Amino acid sequence: MTPFLAARHLFGPGPTNCYPEVTAALGHPVIGHLDPVFIEMLDRTCAGLREVWGTANARTWPLSATGSAGMEASFVNTVNPGDIVVIAVNGLFGERMCEVARRCGAEVVRVEHEWGHPVDVERVLGAHPNPSVIGVVHAETSTGVLSDLTGLGEGKGDALLVVDAVTSLGGMEVRADDWGIDIGYSGTQKCLGVPPGLSPFTVSERAFERRVQDPRSWYLDIGLLGGYVGAAHGSTRTYHHTAPVTMVAALDAALQRIMAEGLEAVWARHQAAGEALRSGLEGLGLSLFAAEGSRLPSLTTVMVPDGVDSARVRDILLNVFGIEIGSGIGRYSDSVWRIGMMGPNASPTGVALVLGALGEALAMA
Amino acid sequence: MTPFLAARHLFGPGPTNCYPEVTAALGHPVIGHLDPVFIEMLDRTCAGLREVWGTANARTWPLSATGSAGMEASFVNTVNPGDIVVIAVNGLFGERMCEVARRCGAEVVRVEHEWGHPVDVERVLGAHPNPSVIGVVHAETSTGVLSDLTGLGEGKGDALLVVDAVTSLGGMEVRADDWGIDIGYSGTQKCLGVPPGLSPFTVSERAFERRVQDPRSWYLDIGLLGGYVGAAHGSTRTYHHTAPVTMVAALDAALQRIMAEGLEAVWARHQAAGEALRSGLEGLGLSLFAAEGSRLPSLTTVMVPDGVDSARVRDILLNVFGIEIGSGIGRYSDSVWRIGMMGPNASPTGVALVLGALGEALAMA
Repeated sequence: MTPFLAARHLFGPGPTNCYPEVTAALGHPVIGHLDPVFIEMLDRTCAGLREVWGTANARTWPLSATGSAGMEASFVNTVNPGDIVVIAVNGLFGERMCEVARRCGAEVVRVEHEWGHPVDVERVLGAHPNPSVIGVVHAETSTGVLSDLTGLGEGKGDALLVVDAVTSLGGMEVRADDWGIDIGYSGTQKCLGVPPGLSPFTVSERAFERRVQDPRSWYLDIGLLGGYVGAAHGSTRTYHHTAPVTMVAALDAALQRIMAEGLEAVWARHQAAGEALRSGLEGLGLSLFAAEGSRLPSLTTVMVPDGVDSARVRDILLNVFGIEIGSGIGRYSDSVWRIGMMGPNASPTGVALVLGALGEALAMA
Repeated sequence: MTPFLAARHLFGPGPTNCYPEVTAALGHPVIGHLDPVFIEMLDRTCAGLREVWGTANARTWPLSATGSAGMEASFVNTVNPGDIVVIAVNGLFGERMCEVARRCGAEVVRVEHEWGHPVDVERVLGAHPNPSVIGVVHAETSTGVLSDLTGLGEGKGDALLVVDAVTSLGGMEVRADDWGIDIGYSGTQKCLGVPPGLSPFTVSERAFERRVQDPRSWYLDIGLLGGYVGAAHGSTRTYHHTAPVTMVAALDAALQRIMAEGLEAVWARHQAAGEALRSGLEGLGLSLFAAEGSRLPSLTTVMVPDGVDSARVRDILLNVFGIEIGSGIGRYSDSVWRIGMMGPNASPTGVALVLGALGEALAMA
């Protein structure tokens, strides 16, 4: 059996299916990481990332690891031992931020929220008079909740604002500069429609100037990585590590595809798919989990109906229909499903497929 | 221009061209990182990695980042602040080990060697009476030098032996268990014939038991990663980060290809290509750089002839023939070329192509 022949319709919390241009790029011959053709591709990829991040930050590039490494890079480059880091916790990824920041030596101030609810900006800003860093998740992959960040950027004071945009970047409005984001990280396997493996990353001038000198991580040191991405960032390009050229080619293809469609058109497509899915799920008699008014277009959370075996429905979806959706996380693992509408899958076709199959699976379970 | 259409013959120090089975795997549809089909693929990949590493280590898996992250994972999981780490420095990657270990809090004892020469086991073992870790590069990518590690494994005492096998794994004999390697790391873009992006990694039971508790890195914590790779390692599979599924599929395809050809046959093919290349280079009147008796089959270093412009020859090779070779590193950047024979390129055809084109380029330069 050659497992990669199994075609799957990926409507979980990620990875999603790739844009066709991405699949084509993955299949092309490898080029060297110092080849002028690759350097041009990397520069274009960084430029495309600036578009989706809504930033002019020179230091915007794909980290050579998955989104979780982007989280680690955010804290390892900003936290000196004993620094106060305020973190809004409204799901698993806020939780993880606390753990990663703690390992970097932070004194973490947790601001707890009920899962399924958005971040309360006033409580976060009031949690400590003068934190070094404020960490917040824009789009909680564990709960399907979107938080409005604009108030944090306005009220952050001297703090650096670190934002997880893993499940929003490329599928909805992200305005790093307008929102006062100092460091943002994401993953390629969600709305960007690329396989997992890279972490789109952006660093403001302010954050770069205040970066940790000689951070504990060599691999994720943004001082060294400036040289890796080179001249666009005001430094000479120097060898740091071997770039994952094929994954960069895939991300480049996705960004070109997104720009050709139009960034706002892509956002609108995700928005429409999210709305149609929510409406259809309610039409099936199901209840949504995330708080009304804070529901992500790219990831919808829905309650498993009483008496229904969550895992059995997911098994039917996978094995009968070839459709993957996600379970819930933590104490919601059996009571919530997570359904993604990301990248090429965010379409009327995607919505119809999921609703049709879920209706049948519920009848069969 | 769509740069990834540029076909290149990659005979530098890596990346190399991929095995055709790898290119096919990269172009197949993505599957989910929790899909049973992917879990089976990951288990098979780990089993294949055990073969190329020559180990029974349960904890053998591809780290979700490039080879340099493998180096960082080796030290971040073994070095507590103030620990003595003896490192053999006979090229750039030994140098880098010192820097990475220092950032992890090590008191580094450097054992200097002239570049181009193999590691002197007696000097390394005599450098400190009781180090916590000994770090050594098996195949120095910067110099094309192979070092015999067997004496280190026999004489290491209580120390953990960390080995960089980036340019040897999958192209020549590596016997982690027989040689007493406690932690080994590699990259996919060399002899394994896969794009860069993963770091094949193996950890002995002894190293795992002595691992740093609560290491500074969450992303590279081998305590947590045991859960990620799951049951084969005696632990329940738990979510840690989203696996780079497409790159794992590519590595799986490469390992299956290598096993189908036969591991020893693959080694012999690399050995024959290296010998033929060295012989042909000497036939062109060129002098080899790496010390005789310690020359890697997978990467040959050769002196740029007096009066020849190194960069101009490489430009001609790239732009006229589509062939990439590498420059030297550090003070050898203009005086040495590095020519790889790795993965599918390690063949009589590859040798003939490089020798033919280099002869012409030297005449044109």
